[in-house]
Order: sequence, then C-alpha cells, then structure tokens
Amino acid sequence: MLYPKSLNTVIEQLQKLPGVGQKTAERYALSLLNFELEDVNALKDAIESVKLNIRYCEQCGNLTETQKCSICEDTQRDQSIICIVGQTTDAIAMEKTASYNGLYHVLNGLISPSKGILPDDLNIESLKHRLTDEYLKEIIIATNLTIEGDTTSLYLSKLINSLNPNIIVSRIAQGLPVGGHLDYADDLTIIKALEGRNKIL
Amino acid sequence: MLYPKSLNTVIEQLQKLPGVGQKTAERYALSLLNFELEDVNALKDAIESVKLNIRYCEQCGNLTETQKCSICEDTQRDQSIICIVGQTTDAIAMEKTASYNGLYHVLNGLISPSKGILPDDLNIESLKHRLTDEYLKEIIIATNLTIEGDTTSLYLSKLINSLNPNIIVSRIAQGLPVGGHLDYADDLTIIKALEGRNKIL
Repeated sequence: MLYPKSLNTVIEQLQKLPGVGQKTAERYALSLLNFELEDVNALKDAIESVKLNIRYCEQCGNLTETQKCSICEDTQRDQSIICIVGQTTDAIAMEKTASYNGLYHVLNGLISPSKGILPDDLNIESLKHRLTDEYLKEIIIATNLTIEGDTTSLYLSKLINSLNPNIIVSRIAQGLPVGGHLDYADDLTIIKALEGRNKIL
Repeated sequence: MLYPKSLNTVIEQLQKLPGVGQKTAERYALSLLNFELEDVNALKDAIESVKLNIRYCEQCGNLTETQKCSICEDTQRDQSIICIVGQTTDAIAMEKTASYNGLYHVLNGLISPSKGILPDDLNIESLKHRLTDEYLKEIIIATNLTIEGDTTSLYLSKLINSLNPNIIVSRIAQGLPVGGHLDYADDLTIIKALEGRNKIL
C-alpha cells in the first residue's frame, strides 16, 4: 500500500526543505490533514508571498520587501559605521543584542574556494560604492570566525584599504565565550584570547 | 531589525507544523528564497491539494482520494481477515513487510481517557457494519503495545465478541524484538516473552 497520490506529492515536495527526510515529511504531510482549511491556505499563501515579495536591499544586500531595507531607510541609525556580515541571520543575531546602531552590509555568502564561492559571487560590488560615502568612518568585519569568515575578512580588509585608506577597519574579537571554561576551550581559542588580551590595571 | 513582513508571516505559519520551532521555521523560510519559482509553486499546490483531496475511506478509515481506498478496492486481497490498526502509518508499516494480504481497519486514534479520547471518537461505527460480512473469519488487533493500544484492544475484543462470536480475534505477539538482548530488555517485555513462549520440540 502506498499513500494516496496527493499525499505522496506533498511528501516529495516537503523533502526539498533543508534537513527534511522521508519520515519528517510524512509527519508534516499527515499533520496538514488535521489543519483547518484556512490554516492550509494561510500557509500556502505565505510560502508563495515570501518567494514573490522578498528581494535583496539594493544598498546593503539585506532581505527586504522594498528597494531599501528598514535599516538602510532608518535615518536615526549611525551612518558613519557599517558592519559586514555573511548572512541576514547574522545581522539579526547582532540586532537582537540591541548593542549596535550602525548600518549593515550583507555579503550573502563567504569566500570558500573549496565550495567554489569566490569574491565575485558575493555582494561586494555594492560595498565598493558605499566606500565613497563621505559620512563613512569605520567598517566592522563581523563574518564568522571560521576559515571562510577569516578569508573573507582578509580579502575585504585589503580591498577596503586599497579603495579608501581613510576608513578604520576592525574585526570582531576572538576569545573565550562568556561562561567559557579554559579547560574545555580548544588551543586556538586560548591562543587568540591571549593575543587579544586587554589591559585592566 | 525584524525580518520583512512576508518572511515573518511564513516563519509564523511554518511553526504550525509538528515539532517546528522558531529556528527551524527560519531555516525553512530562508531556504524558500533559494527555491526556483516553479518549486515554490509545486510545494504550495501540493499542500493545498493534500487538504482538498485526501479523505477517509468510507469502509476502513484509511486515507484515500476516492470513496474506498486502494486496499478495500483490491479484490485480490484476502477478504476473510481484517487487521485493526491505530493510524494509517501503522498500516503502511505492515504493508512494507509484504507479509499480510488481508484488509485493514484504521481507527484513527486509540482510546486514551487521559487525553479525552473515548471509543466514540474512533472509527468504530463502520467496523460494526463490517462484522456482519459473511466472508469475515478473523480479526487481528494490531494496535500499539502501549497502555492506549492495550485498552483499545480489550475494548474491541469484547465488542467484536458481543456482536459476532463466530469471528476469531487475535492480538499481535509481544516479546523481544529481533536482535534484542535479554539484559537490555525491560521486565515487562521479558514477562510477556515468557508468557507467549512457543513450543519448538
């Protein structure tokens, strides 16, 4: 016995979502049968709408429904500082801390030759235009502290320096996380924490 | 910064799926942005179609797109035996073994007073009609070997016996699973395996 055709189809389609296999897709599909019709319609409309309406902000590469994202449009934010991140989700993680009030630049990827992702594949062209902005004073590179993130950081710092040497370029600090234990930390993290030590007295 | 509106909406909607929280919904939603438009359409059409087209088989309660499910329609199957299961997925698990060729009856639930599920909430009325079928000889109760499954089994065996005492009623065997180790098995399983021991010589 197989599932009826339309159930099989939705199980197949749901498996296109990341990390969803046969069992999970079956579970989702069977749960749809218990949805109210209006809930099913709300879900399918939302799926269609996100594909049709979401685009990249033409200034910073963030996700938006308008030409510019809400952060680029916000004149209350500090226009003199740009934080470069790999993904929209990274910018959201920063925003949740409520400790940064500048602008962002979302690369939508990180340089990774092994995955075939080169600088040309990233949202760097529009960054070059932003470097000529007279208000801009500092760029914080907040790409992940991974090989890809470090490679991207190195590439960008050289690029920024060559195009506008007056801009201060910084990188987020490496060290032990808050609540971290020295005896559980890896060697490289301890080395970075030592290198980045701060004078306290 | 929040996600754009349509992204927030789809994240909210996706959380109605079982076991999907904020993070998973975000992951699914962001992956939709990388879908081809035709894939997005295929997904939303499949979701709509499963809700509109799937119904319960009027004979056995299985999921189907027609009045009767493919198993009830299949005249090659043994009409003298019915296997009672809790869910469609249980019937599918049985079908995958290719060791059973009779009919099914899907209760779409198990008796569970603590969850407020009583016999009247299950697909039992149509089972009563089937008990009058002249071809029917045996009923196998294959509900889960849990308290709910056992309660349902007890209730059904009494019901079947009161309505048609000529039908043989059996329950699937309890014991150690294939490959099971005695020293890892729980007490109750070992007791049931002892009680259900089979003579081999």
